[in-house]
Amino acid sequence: MNRVAIVGAGHSKFGKRKDVNVAELAFESIKQAVTDAGIERKEIKNVVVGSAGGWYEEALPAVIVNEYAGLRSVGTMRVEAACASGSAAVKAAHDSVATGESDVALAVGVEKMTEVDTMTSVELIGRAGSYMWEFENYGMTFPAYYALYAVSYMNRFNTTEEDMARVAVKAHHYGSLNPNAQFQKEITVEKVLSSQVVAWPLKLYDACPLTDGSAAVVLANEEVAKRLTDTPVWIKGIGYSSDSANLSKRDDYVGLRASVEAGRRAYQAAKVTPREVDVATCHDCFTIAEIMAYEDLGFCEKGEGAKLVREGQTEIGGRIPVNLDGGLKAKGHPIGATGVSMMVEITKQLRGEGGSRQAPIRNGIGLVHNVGGTGHYAYVTILSRGA
Amino acid sequence: MNRVAIVGAGHSKFGKRKDVNVAELAFESIKQAVTDAGIERKEIKNVVVGSAGGWYEEALPAVIVNEYAGLRSVGTMRVEAACASGSAAVKAAHDSVATGESDVALAVGVEKMTEVDTMTSVELIGRAGSYMWEFENYGMTFPAYYALYAVSYMNRFNTTEEDMARVAVKAHHYGSLNPNAQFQKEITVEKVLSSQVVAWPLKLYDACPLTDGSAAVVLANEEVAKRLTDTPVWIKGIGYSSDSANLSKRDDYVGLRASVEAGRRAYQAAKVTPREVDVATCHDCFTIAEIMAYEDLGFCEKGEGAKLVREGQTEIGGRIPVNLDGGLKAKGHPIGATGVSMMVEITKQLRGEGGSRQAPIRNGIGLVHNVGGTGHYAYVTILSRGA
Repeated sequence: MNRVAIVGAGHSKFGKRKDVNVAELAFESIKQAVTDAGIERKEIKNVVVGSAGGWYEEALPAVIVNEYAGLRSVGTMRVEAACASGSAAVKAAHDSVATGESDVALAVGVEKMTEVDTMTSVELIGRAGSYMWEFENYGMTFPAYYALYAVSYMNRFNTTEEDMARVAVKAHHYGSLNPNAQFQKEITVEKVLSSQVVAWPLKLYDACPLTDGSAAVVLANEEVAKRLTDTPVWIKGIGYSSDSANLSKRDDYVGLRASVEAGRRAYQAAKVTPREVDVATCHDCFTIAEIMAYEDLGFCEKGEGAKLVREGQTEIGGRIPVNLDGGLKAKGHPIGATGVSMMVEITKQLRGEGGSRQAPIRNGIGLVHNVGGTGHYAYVTILSRGA
Repeated sequence: MNRVAIVGAGHSKFGKRKDVNVAELAFESIKQAVTDAGIERKEIKNVVVGSAGGWYEEALPAVIVNEYAGLRSVGTMRVEAACASGSAAVKAAHDSVATGESDVALAVGVEKMTEVDTMTSVELIGRAGSYMWEFENYGMTFPAYYALYAVSYMNRFNTTEEDMARVAVKAHHYGSLNPNAQFQKEITVEKVLSSQVVAWPLKLYDACPLTDGSAAVVLANEEVAKRLTDTPVWIKGIGYSSDSANLSKRDDYVGLRASVEAGRRAYQAAKVTPREVDVATCHDCFTIAEIMAYEDLGFCEKGEGAKLVREGQTEIGGRIPVNLDGGLKAKGHPIGATGVSMMVEITKQLRGEGGSRQAPIRNGIGLVHNVGGTGHYAYVTILSRGA
């Protein structure tokens, strides 16, 4: 098996992007990634597009995206793993390089969610739970699902609404430093607590927004990577798992089993421990999700996640800085793009290109945690600056 | 890179399947494939689901399918390459075994298209062309696209409506011998020619039907394959390509460039020539498509495809038997399942389990040709009984 490195990274502006169609939006990040890699487009042998679809008009986004980017005739497929579609795209592109089939592959994530009105989006996302049981019978939508987690977690660990609010405040702080973020304004705990209740205890500022955006990474085998760059970022390990689509069948409501399992597999594949991770992105679709992710990924013990936030341990200068790009909460969450966007962020961090948001890099290890559905899917990808 | 073999194959009944939901439909073929492989489900480390979606209610078919099949917690993703989604799923599952990540992986294709009325289906498929230009502006649907090919081809090569009708007659003949086929009745050239015109020169019997169905294959690395079976069917080579989504930008209208390129790459990867292929499935969404495929894949020269049919060269006893399962035309075409269904057919043929539809196997080489859209995507997979 060939080693695979990220040798180019690109990222569009996230937000409401009425100025572009889905192909143009994807092209923004593809162009950056290809330029960053310093390759000719003809070197790209495989393009994997991560997109959940359903929000925008094109039914075959992969070919539309490729054609507009001048990649007509390149072999391609679209992959979907709900909100983890971007990580799944990176995995599929990684595999095609690892097998030796492609020397260079491109993974691009794209979603254009503001094409429809907010209520339609909420329905589309709600359908991605367990359609037949929970959406159709009980009218469950995603804020409601995560509110169940939040209530269960608060009850078990005496965690408060203030604790969750601090996650959003951190996200908005780093979002204010990220020019690609959808929200670039600092907020306060008071602002979160006084925002509209969406599904108690979750309020508007506990939730990530609907977003248009794209992100892309160029992957290459060792030979090409060493030719192109002195700062390849290696994909050291990928772990992925799934769980019941039916929330009533989950083991508990204070963490995501799929995240635990995906993390375990990724650490094992990468031969890395949680303690060695310098910087991470965690899937903070809601504030409670980030707190649970700390624990599921072994950054702290179960029940200690809120304490980590209170102590500032997941900020720059803390034990393990998380979501220095603003996270889903402030950077935005264009479903299919999110996992790739996380790879771009960790790549830049490991290269030391984080600017005012740069984490200290000791071991050269970064981690991407990307969840699909309410823990239906989880993907954990471990990246490394060193060999 | 590890060698990868198909060690288990399963196939549901194709047709209108109001008796099952999408998870139950997928389970029919998964159960057969797992039983055929003789493995425990816990050995499966990765499930890739090929499904275009949009026809049935579940937005995350991969987790729904896995959970129902007792594969909860297995890592998974859905892949889409329009009507080539099944082949794309096999490629992604293949890659995860080839890299050494998974010892055993499952590729399952499933679609449930008769949930919506026929006109909605025609619109859904039509949107998969070039939505913005051709569907929205010109109202093009798939029969119209392939009618353009048929007219162009007939003009260039003096091919007739009778020639195309013969492809349908062949398909229905073999479909009548396949208990899983949607249509199991023989038809005549006269019946095809007198059927309703859908988009001249294509008539109802030149077109494949809308279908519900699933198919599954278990893939394993060499060590596991040799433990499980004396008749592994090796994946010798996969080629894939894409083309413009916009028909007006295609090079010509007498073949699919993506098929030619995918075939070239697959033959090269497998170190096989077209002459060595014993048996094939070709993507006959319309009769003209099968004729063009013969040429695009090198089974004959450009313009000679209709002659091949007239001479019976693509029947059992001919030079290269094609679509002995009835093809998309008679077996049916559940979009996401079709590519996997083709793998099942060629696996059975290479194992000598074709029964009354068995092709003579000389070189032990079979070929699967699967197109997405109107040549938007093409996947060619070469399978081998020998080492």
